[in-house]
Amino acid sequence: MEKTFRFELIHQSKKSGARVGRIHTPHGIIDTPAFVGVGTNATMKSLDSKTVSDIGLQLMFCNTYHLLLQPGAELIKKAGGLHKFMNRDMPLITDSGGFQVFSLMYGTVKDELKSKGKKKGDSSVLKISEEGVLFRSYRDGKKILLTPETSVQAQKDLGADIIIPFDELPPYHIDKKKLVESLHRTHRWEERSLKEHLKNPNGQAMYAVIHGGVDPELRELSAKTLTALPFDGFAIGGSLGKTREQMVEMLKQLMPHLPKDKPNHLLGIGDIESLEQCVKLGIDSFDCSHPTRAARHGTLFTTQGFVKIANAQHREAFEPIDPACDCFTCKNYTRAYMYHLFKAKEATAHTLASIHNLHFMVQLMAEYREKIMRDEI
Amino acid sequence: MEKTFRFELIHQSKKSGARVGRIHTPHGIIDTPAFVGVGTNATMKSLDSKTVSDIGLQLMFCNTYHLLLQPGAELIKKAGGLHKFMNRDMPLITDSGGFQVFSLMYGTVKDELKSKGKKKGDSSVLKISEEGVLFRSYRDGKKILLTPETSVQAQKDLGADIIIPFDELPPYHIDKKKLVESLHRTHRWEERSLKEHLKNPNGQAMYAVIHGGVDPELRELSAKTLTALPFDGFAIGGSLGKTREQMVEMLKQLMPHLPKDKPNHLLGIGDIESLEQCVKLGIDSFDCSHPTRAARHGTLFTTQGFVKIANAQHREAFEPIDPACDCFTCKNYTRAYMYHLFKAKEATAHTLASIHNLHFMVQLMAEYREKIMRDEI
Repeated sequence: MEKTFRFELIHQSKKSGARVGRIHTPHGIIDTPAFVGVGTNATMKSLDSKTVSDIGLQLMFCNTYHLLLQPGAELIKKAGGLHKFMNRDMPLITDSGGFQVFSLMYGTVKDELKSKGKKKGDSSVLKISEEGVLFRSYRDGKKILLTPETSVQAQKDLGADIIIPFDELPPYHIDKKKLVESLHRTHRWEERSLKEHLKNPNGQAMYAVIHGGVDPELRELSAKTLTALPFDGFAIGGSLGKTREQMVEMLKQLMPHLPKDKPNHLLGIGDIESLEQCVKLGIDSFDCSHPTRAARHGTLFTTQGFVKIANAQHREAFEPIDPACDCFTCKNYTRAYMYHLFKAKEATAHTLASIHNLHFMVQLMAEYREKIMRDEI
Repeated sequence: MEKTFRFELIHQSKKSGARVGRIHTPHGIIDTPAFVGVGTNATMKSLDSKTVSDIGLQLMFCNTYHLLLQPGAELIKKAGGLHKFMNRDMPLITDSGGFQVFSLMYGTVKDELKSKGKKKGDSSVLKISEEGVLFRSYRDGKKILLTPETSVQAQKDLGADIIIPFDELPPYHIDKKKLVESLHRTHRWEERSLKEHLKNPNGQAMYAVIHGGVDPELRELSAKTLTALPFDGFAIGGSLGKTREQMVEMLKQLMPHLPKDKPNHLLGIGDIESLEQCVKLGIDSFDCSHPTRAARHGTLFTTQGFVKIANAQHREAFEPIDPACDCFTCKNYTRAYMYHLFKAKEATAHTLASIHNLHFMVQLMAEYREKIMRDEI
């Protein structure tokens, strides 16, 4: 296992922007394009770390905001870092905590689109300044100052293989002047984050976050500004539009401005339809909590489409969720049994469904990589 | 694997009534004394069947009442029986459903002792007669007639290795005349159950249930009546007293009336203190949901006593729950991580804690068997 971060471009498709790569990290390899599972609180919901590794999920996302509040970054440092704390021997990525804090302030883009721009205005955010954000822990009322420096320090304590600089998540409904101001401050914050990180890289890589909202010129400006700095990779954050079409259009314009020799990541997007299109644009990794959340709500992913397992038609279906699947759940249990577990409200249902959907995503990405290698997509 | 049920007495302790045995069933061996895990709805809560088998739990208890309501015994028959439905390749025991129906009527003995004899009087029980009990499903309002014959038929559909005849669970506060009437009706019901069972034994064994409440003479009468019939084993049911001391006293009087060449089972008792005493009286198996329920509430069993894992003292305890334990949880995770998972309200906590406590019980019984073999207890 290599002790430093390195991106290896394996194959560039002749048919599209799609590419196969290999990210080397101190905790092993991430084959790209990769699906990145979300384990907010240092566990994927309903699955322990060993189970997640057995499924073959090469990169897991943990949320610094949540871990700061419980159990605290210092505690995880004492434990020997996040890998040791949660007993994961494969790569981890953490975010800066900014996304959650600004979501408290503005609501998420999704909430915002639903409520037509009404601010959530959570009172737990006390102050936003050039320095950073002061907010109050909803757990114990303690004030926490999140700045580029404190966020990076927390992520040093956590010790993930890939870390993210502190950025602002601007609201979707924002005028251009404010968006420009936010973007410049984000750039200043990211540069401060990088500086703090480079004092002690410690085998960790830092991905910048490209912002600029739905404005193509600002996106280009952000890409140019950040790619001029020695970041190890580039994540794409913030709102990319109201619809998938708008997002894809924006990515088409943005991707040529990212360097080919460094990995990129699309933050928070990982639904199957988006993956299909974004892989072709050359996106290397995608994090998304949808597959495991859908699992807990009884929506199972199959090669034949989504299966709502609690629907009556599965009551007597004595066959696997997906006959083409070789996951633990499909090898051992039937749709009828899964239907029963959901009807009986047994937690076992969540575990078995999550294993299946996560395995589906891991397999799907492996198939994409094979197709790209053959220049089929 | 033998296709018929057989009890093999391996060793009778020279020091007490304790004995080591081996129950052969169509789905494998149960080493006794054995702890029997409770998987009410065809799953141990938070654990799938493969995980339970990996822990080495040789006998699992499923509840016919719950399975009748969801998914229904006919469906499980169509699935190929309970073993195939839940993919368990080790022995299963089902009860008659009587306990739950009469608990709806009278409340459990525990509820009753708490509320000083007040009847729960659930309106879902519509009629009790010599034929059986008519009740209404709380799930869909459908009327269900549970009789010795229908209970046995349901248990034939389920196909557990050990089944239980239909019996009445009399309330704790009952006068002797009514207790005698209940006992005689239970004996008639159990004989009808046995008759129904013997029409098609199908590799299944039937354990009678000894009743008689807290009256030693009635317990003796029950033992004599039921041991005169060709049951494969004998379970001890109903109230055995208000305290553990009363229970132990009652068992001391009752056990000499049970045949040495057949296995016995103590229904619903399996706390660690009771096990200690009851093993010495020659009880062969114990079912209890306490270890897994306690796990979900953060009470972990160790060789050093109970550990309340969500207590602050475990926040920085970077060591296994029990250094002497080699379960999956202790091999992979620390107390500090378990503390965190409980604090973060992650379902993974329930799974890992349940694995640990179940493994503890399986190990505890293995140690009892070794001690009995050496005549130490």
